[in-house]
Amino acid sequence: MTVQNALQETRFERGSRALARIDGAGGETVVNALADIAPDFARYLVEFPFGDIYSRPELGLRDREIATIAALAAMGNAAPQLKIHIEAGLNVGLSRVEIVEVMMQMAVYAGFPAALNGLFAAKEVFAEHEIAG
Amino acid sequence: MTVQNALQETRFERGSRALARIDGAGGETVVNALADIAPDFARYLVEFPFGDIYSRPELGLRDREIATIAALAAMGNAAPQLKIHIEAGLNVGLSRVEIVEVMMQMAVYAGFPAALNGLFAAKEVFAEHEIAG
Amino acid sequence: MTVQNALQETRFERGSRALARIDGAGGETVVNALADIAPDFARYLVEFPFGDIYSRPELGLRDREIATIAALAAMGNAAPQLKIHIEAGLNVGLSRVEIVEVMMQMAVYAGFPAALNGLFAAKEVFAEHEIAG
Amino acid sequence: MTVQNALQETRFERGSRALARIDGAGGETVVNALADIAPDFARYLVEFPFGDIYSRPELGLRDREIATIAALAAMGNAAPQLKIHIEAGLNVGLSRVEIVEVMMQMAVYAGFPAALNGLFAAKEVFAEHEIAG
Amino acid sequence: MTVQNALQETRFERGSRALARIDGAGGETVVNALADIAPDFARYLVEFPFGDIYSRPELGLRDREIATIAALAAMGNAAPQLKIHIEAGLNVGLSRVEIVEVMMQMAVYAGFPAALNGLFAAKEVFAEHEIAG
Amino acid sequence: MTVQNALQETRFERGSRALARIDGAGGETVVNALADIAPDFARYLVEFPFGDIYSRPELGLRDREIATIAALAAMGNAAPQLKIHIEAGLNVGLSRVEIVEVMMQMAVYAGFPAALNGLFAAKEVFAEHEIAG
Repeated sequence: MTVQNALQETRFERGSRALARIDGAGGETVVNALADIAPDFARYLVEFPFGDIYSRPELGLRDREIATIAALAAMGNAAPQLKIHIEAGLNVGLSRVEIVEVMMQMAVYAGFPAALNGLFAAKEVFAEHEIAG
Repeated sequence: MTVQNALQETRFERGSRALARIDGAGGETVVNALADIAPDFARYLVEFPFGDIYSRPELGLRDREIATIAALAAMGNAAPQLKIHIEAGLNVGLSRVEIVEVMMQMAVYAGFPAALNGLFAAKEVFAEHEIAG
Repeated sequence: MTVQNALQETRFERGSRALARIDGAGGETVVNALADIAPDFARYLVEFPFGDIYSRPELGLRDREIATIAALAAMGNAAPQLKIHIEAGLNVGLSRVEIVEVMMQMAVYAGFPAALNGLFAAKEVFAEHEIAG
Repeated sequence: MTVQNALQETRFERGSRALARIDGAGGETVVNALADIAPDFARYLVEFPFGDIYSRPELGLRDREIATIAALAAMGNAAPQLKIHIEAGLNVGLSRVEIVEVMMQMAVYAGFPAALNGLFAAKEVFAEHEIAG
Repeated sequence: MTVQNALQETRFERGSRALARIDGAGGETVVNALADIAPDFARYLVEFPFGDIYSRPELGLRDREIATIAALAAMGNAAPQLKIHIEAGLNVGLSRVEIVEVMMQMAVYAGFPAALNGLFAAKEVFAEHEIAG
Repeated sequence: MTVQNALQETRFERGSRALARIDGAGGETVVNALADIAPDFARYLVEFPFGDIYSRPELGLRDREIATIAALAAMGNAAPQLKIHIEAGLNVGLSRVEIVEVMMQMAVYAGFPAALNGLFAAKEVFAEHEIAG
């Protein structure tokens, strides 16, 4: 893509590229699942989190996924999204060991149950990779 | 320190070094504030989070502070600790811009109020640096 | 029911009427499920939330269900109750579109995962209506 | 404004109008407070919550503020934003009595402390109105 | 009080006795603060938590305050109520050491920041006792 | 075990004894589930919560389980751990009735959904006991 095209790209186009790069098929599945109940929200999801926030060059995608995995594990009330972002972390360059370390560290800030549930979510995602790979 | 000394170091000694490196004076202040009410907890605080978790080489301190800042901003119920870790982030190599990006990203996962309160906490810590500097 | 009867009505009777009007069969199911483990709590559930709070005329049931759906979606840790109150919202006059709007708005205050999980809960409840209808 | 102008309006312009209508001076104060630390986030705050979400005609502003007040009181970790939205609720047509009812109802879903802290926040906002009026 | 009187006692009377026994002056202060904004909620607060729940003989008041202190410290979003219940814990027979232990244990389930904020709340309450005593 | 042996016991040994005493087979299952993904975290889980905190004599195990059950039910985002600790409560001397009372009390501090989900978790654990017994 040329610089000029990038400048002309809409938020939705930029967000779609970011979403595909980060979440892979998982992102597309969520967007499709919204199509019948809240199609505008599917668009907002692409535009704001991915077109606006994740596309900002001030912080790399690997750093952004550390932040997201930590937050979702700490809050502990968004299991499906946590699994998608463990997957996303692998996609943007985090190793399994690094993801496991982030989960362990959450024991300090959100308690051992949050860390355990994060670790078991990671274990599931890693196992799905074995099978798929 | 020689390798042999490092091996002989206790969890408390290792944690004290990590705490001083990460939180600076802020960590010592917290430990001192616990001295009269829960001295054993001051010891656990040095030993487990800092002696066990932060001292693990599998994830760098800059990455660890991204995780902690994200988690504390997202949970939104630990304002004093969030400010200490914004300070800690600066100590271990995060730029102001990067810390601001982490806060902005929390709007996606924990809502705009969590992001705003994180940004205003960062603003306060940055301003204290100006004065101190 | 005459005015006099209404005045003589106990909190439990008033709450039972409100619960049936709002939650339909869902409320009765919850009350029955408590019968063997905590029968007094089943009574409190009818008396305080429904006999005291929902029976107050100062705020209409449609408004009350907006508040409840928003709160449960934002907290994100009470999936069964959220589904019961999406159903209740339909019972007291909220349209599907309005419930979807409340969920979308929660992205602003509690983050996109809370909104997504709320939307998918609504999708499930709406689908059960299709089948039942 | 003519229909054509409305169509040409940017998200930022539409959001600015909505923010002024809903939050009054409180919204402008928040936007200004972000100017030095995160100016892009000030723009996102106007564009997404207010330009995208609150500007949707599918749910009225009075209903939207019931949802926001309920969610913020229930989560209990965003006191400044709760006060701004109690003010906003008054701006878009909620009565003091209705706001008090929403807070009371939160005792059922988030516990008595959340309801009490919501009621005391409302008491402060109402008192500031007396003085200002 | 004779058995017959106890049976004839209203929920409000029973709750008032329990509230005075448990929270002392702190409970009365909260009830009075509600008088102008939500007098009915003051009544509910006496009747349901204290008249219904705390008056049940199946669990002692000391056990009940352990549960309440643990829950409020873990949730971390109700600082005023946590302080009232640290006071209440002392009133119904918990020692300072036992309250400190409950706070320390919350590090395991809700993270170190929750435990630290609980410990510092306890330190404040204990210090007020020194002055008052 | 002689006093001297107790003094020489490591944190891990002391924690293992406490974990077996409190959680029974449930604790061992969790530790084993961590073996492949985060073996160090399995060790920390034994050492800090059980070797350090639960082994402190300043508060009895029955009191500690009241605190844990209350906290986990109130936070509402750690269902597997809540069930393990309902089981643990029975192991260290809490009666079914007392556990039910703790859950009911959480309606006051964390709302009726938290209490209901806690009661239904208890119902499941009690039923598994019937079958196992």
